[in-house]
Amino acid sequence: MTPEEKLDFETFYFAQPVDHFDATYTATFKQRYLVSTKYWNKNGGPIFMYTGNEGDVVWFLRNTGFMFKMAAKFQAMMVFAEHRYYGKSLPFGSQSYKDPLKLSFLTSEQALADYAKLIGHIKSTVSGARNSSVVAFGGSYGGMLSAWFRMKYAGVVDGSISASAPIWQFTGLSLCNGPYKVITDTFKKASVQCAKNIRASWDVIDKMSNSEAGFKFMTDEFKLCFPLNSSNIMDFKNWLSETWFDLAMIDYPYPANFLQPLPAWPVKQTCLSLNTTFSNDAALISGLAKALQVYYNYTGQISCFSLSSSGPLGTLGWFYQSCTEMVMPFCTNGITDMFQPSSWNFTKYSLACYQAWKVYPRKNWIKTNYGGKNIESASNIVFSNGLLDPWSAGSVLRNISDSLVAVIMPEGAHHLDLRSSNPADPQSEVVEKRIILVTLLRFQEYHG
Amino acid sequence: MTPEEKLDFETFYFAQPVDHFDATYTATFKQRYLVSTKYWNKNGGPIFMYTGNEGDVVWFLRNTGFMFKMAAKFQAMMVFAEHRYYGKSLPFGSQSYKDPLKLSFLTSEQALADYAKLIGHIKSTVSGARNSSVVAFGGSYGGMLSAWFRMKYAGVVDGSISASAPIWQFTGLSLCNGPYKVITDTFKKASVQCAKNIRASWDVIDKMSNSEAGFKFMTDEFKLCFPLNSSNIMDFKNWLSETWFDLAMIDYPYPANFLQPLPAWPVKQTCLSLNTTFSNDAALISGLAKALQVYYNYTGQISCFSLSSSGPLGTLGWFYQSCTEMVMPFCTNGITDMFQPSSWNFTKYSLACYQAWKVYPRKNWIKTNYGGKNIESASNIVFSNGLLDPWSAGSVLRNISDSLVAVIMPEGAHHLDLRSSNPADPQSEVVEKRIILVTLLRFQEYHG
Repeated sequence: MTPEEKLDFETFYFAQPVDHFDATYTATFKQRYLVSTKYWNKNGGPIFMYTGNEGDVVWFLRNTGFMFKMAAKFQAMMVFAEHRYYGKSLPFGSQSYKDPLKLSFLTSEQALADYAKLIGHIKSTVSGARNSSVVAFGGSYGGMLSAWFRMKYAGVVDGSISASAPIWQFTGLSLCNGPYKVITDTFKKASVQCAKNIRASWDVIDKMSNSEAGFKFMTDEFKLCFPLNSSNIMDFKNWLSETWFDLAMIDYPYPANFLQPLPAWPVKQTCLSLNTTFSNDAALISGLAKALQVYYNYTGQISCFSLSSSGPLGTLGWFYQSCTEMVMPFCTNGITDMFQPSSWNFTKYSLACYQAWKVYPRKNWIKTNYGGKNIESASNIVFSNGLLDPWSAGSVLRNISDSLVAVIMPEGAHHLDLRSSNPADPQSEVVEKRIILVTLLRFQEYHG
Repeated sequence: MTPEEKLDFETFYFAQPVDHFDATYTATFKQRYLVSTKYWNKNGGPIFMYTGNEGDVVWFLRNTGFMFKMAAKFQAMMVFAEHRYYGKSLPFGSQSYKDPLKLSFLTSEQALADYAKLIGHIKSTVSGARNSSVVAFGGSYGGMLSAWFRMKYAGVVDGSISASAPIWQFTGLSLCNGPYKVITDTFKKASVQCAKNIRASWDVIDKMSNSEAGFKFMTDEFKLCFPLNSSNIMDFKNWLSETWFDLAMIDYPYPANFLQPLPAWPVKQTCLSLNTTFSNDAALISGLAKALQVYYNYTGQISCFSLSSSGPLGTLGWFYQSCTEMVMPFCTNGITDMFQPSSWNFTKYSLACYQAWKVYPRKNWIKTNYGGKNIESASNIVFSNGLLDPWSAGSVLRNISDSLVAVIMPEGAHHLDLRSSNPADPQSEVVEKRIILVTLLRFQEYHG
């Protein structure tokens, strides 16, 4: 039984204006949302709404067990709202991604307006909900949205649980190499030698890329479905980087299937084959290849790797968003991190965006629109972060006020706290964090 | 010397995106703004920004003397930012009003985004302004914008002076007859008999409209430039209603030239010829006609009246805005007010909007977007109101929290407090109000 069946979730669709900010544009689309009233106190119990991020909302529902637990505790209605342009909430159906003009309504502002109107719709149509307090839940981009939702629509939402939300990983707000330093620290924690080997691997790959034999060796060792060559070696290295990124991000203390089916503490597992001093380059490549098997072939069902991944996230939509509003500068230096040095080049980034979407990014807009570091006048937001998670580098890690609270899980990965609790959770931190969350959630009692 | 000359205001233009919420739309336009650094402490003194409303911003500058005084006191830079689609800030030049598609960027959200970006521009280009605190000033619609600016862009603006801002004169937030009750009370205060005669006048006009002779009599008495008849009598009555509305709104205690050149306490002056019991209908009409001379012909230069007024406000732009976002329900009952009973008919209103602009109003959007009555989590806003002013009916008249403060001037008209101080100001109230404002403004010292 899936969680949505177990918790009696029903699926609904709500007609939203395609453009909330232009009355001359009258088209609407159907936004999907799932509702469970299993735990709800129909006499004004609170509404907990997950502000969906870049993917099918059902997938977020299945990875947000904490919200179920809290809903049971607070007798809350649960709503999982899907983000426009993802899952089944496509403003122009199968044509939604056809051209930039059709995509122009894919913005965080429009998504927040969707959520605000949806709350209004629920309150005005569900008997007993009119005066319910509303708490937004979200992780990652969904966590940014839950925080911004409270900042921008404080009259609609009373507070937010914003998990692993890098609201400061934007131009001018954080160092561009922050996330890569965190990844490196997470790997070092598992094995200093492992991080050292990964740092060394880039030069080895480059050296091997000088000969056909080297390409052939790497193609075989890494079990690729295609031959490596000088035109795709860069893609391959990026794929490696992304793999280390993802591994640190989802370094959960128990077997989980978030982006991939993985064992407990996957960074440690990955590092098992890199926790040694290699006597030569070929041995290092072999070690690296074995390490990758943990991430990409834990179930042993894959015979060869292509670089494409078709995960649950809407990567195409996010690519567009990162080319318009969500401009997150990234860089590496090879010193505080284990990656090949690479600087942030906005001009190049911008041109790539133009090539792909015929748009240029508005790199400062998120800071202007959502306040950047000046958010101290907001209230009732819990920013939680696990320090193993690269996204923690651009997140809120200190209390800003009595009601803008930072919760840190030193041993936690990407929104570990939103997941169902597990005996393997690093108890001290997660439990403490949950207590704080619950305490904060009590504000709903005064409003409800 | 005009105030802008006296205070060394310089005029600038800033390139704003026509559409802040769509990166695929790359056109920009020049927003006008005026800056004075006459009083500014160039070492981080605060920025006081007037958030322009529906008209030429220079006109607002000339009617906002309070801001000059406060700027002198707080060593503040003064910025008067013009609202898009008004004055010289026309996104499509002379074509801006040509069709609804060109007007589709005329929204309060776009205007607020303009103001936010403009602050960023000033802070990043004017040496010494980088860490300046920002206080927004505004009256009427400009006051709604200054309040909403703080609510939506709390990271950009530290506090707002929101004068006579009817943020609650929207669907579902206030009674539709509230403003007309206030007008009636304002007239009653000047003369109970005057209000009684105005209430009686509608039936008299209707009765006279039954005959050619009646129309002829009224045309002559009211000194109209055109003959009254059954097809324009409704417009004439609306014009009368608007006149009473405007008179109450600008019932200042000294001669002023806001919408019209007027004597001190114009309601009282108007009522001088209506402060009696008329022996017959013709006498009442004559009294009414004399009363109107106060408003429309105080300078005695007009030989006949047409109903059209070409004032400083952008009535066409506001018509569009009221047909999209700014849906303010109005009605009269003839019992608690002195007007002819008229109910609020949204369907009719909506159809008129469609006829004029090919748009249907989004009547609940302002409430959803700006929080309606649920604004208690905002901070640092002073809502000031004069109780003579019809707009006070839809405004914030009570303290909501320690930093959402309501200031009442029982003898004040429409944003009297924003005007230069005058010996005739009702001292007790205005002085007290200013003290409170100044106290609140002190928060800038902690930020500045």
